[in-house]
Amino acid sequence: MTKLLTTTEALELIKAGKIGRLGCVDQDGPYVVPINYLLDDGEIYSHALPGKKIDAMRTDPRVCLQVDHIHDDLHWSSAIAFGRFEEIQKPECRRVAMTKILSSFPKMTPVESMIVQDAAAPDSIIFKIVVERVTGVLEG
Amino acid sequence: MTKLLTTTEALELIKAGKIGRLGCVDQDGPYVVPINYLLDDGEIYSHALPGKKIDAMRTDPRVCLQVDHIHDDLHWSSAIAFGRFEEIQKPECRRVAMTKILSSFPKMTPVESMIVQDAAAPDSIIFKIVVERVTGVLEG
Repeated sequence: MTKLLTTTEALELIKAGKIGRLGCVDQDGPYVVPINYLLDDGEIYSHALPGKKIDAMRTDPRVCLQVDHIHDDLHWSSAIAFGRFEEIQKPECRRVAMTKILSSFPKMTPVESMIVQDAAAPDSIIFKIVVERVTGVLEG
Repeated sequence: MTKLLTTTEALELIKAGKIGRLGCVDQDGPYVVPINYLLDDGEIYSHALPGKKIDAMRTDPRVCLQVDHIHDDLHWSSAIAFGRFEEIQKPECRRVAMTKILSSFPKMTPVESMIVQDAAAPDSIIFKIVVERVTGVLEG
């Protein structure tokens, strides 16, 4: 049986997760990458090194984050948050966001850990998705 | 340590998986959904009921499929295939594709199973992604 999730249920699914698939669009079309994220107070926080997804989101801020919990082909749920990419640039705001992010997923790659020690380092891109709409489906 | 996968390695990762995240674009921006798929002879096969993703891909055939294998935050790999949506419409081609798909993921929802019994049913949309480019990253 397939049923649509309410906005509250979809947000709960996203809040319970830590890995989602970020969708964005560049000049060639859609681009999807797995990211660690944190849903806090209705906004989605994450960070990244410079690269294709950051270039894409800076050019076209329309993004989505898809999160699922898949038990098997007949029992799964998936939610998607649609919103806008917003880079967090003020040093104090960066520190606050990074502290939130680190409390949620302390494991980082060595490169990221080095950057995090100095949240002011220009290479460390901290961003949020300002969520505009959330939908979801449950199968099972 | 982060390393780029070769095309062959990225294709192997996709071939080994069964669930990927399909990215497409509609008038509102990017859209990402989990799908079952089969990589066969360099093309990606899947099926769907009518809905938002099919409408999006019929309008803008640029799509991607992202597949990952995540052990933990420090040990994961992810590959992405970029290509074009192509609906499989000829009855004989639909039967061949559906047989391949069913051999890979026999579990389907009751609604899908009913449709599959008659691959000619108009509601059953069978499609492939004609892969143009594959990339991937390994962390760990």
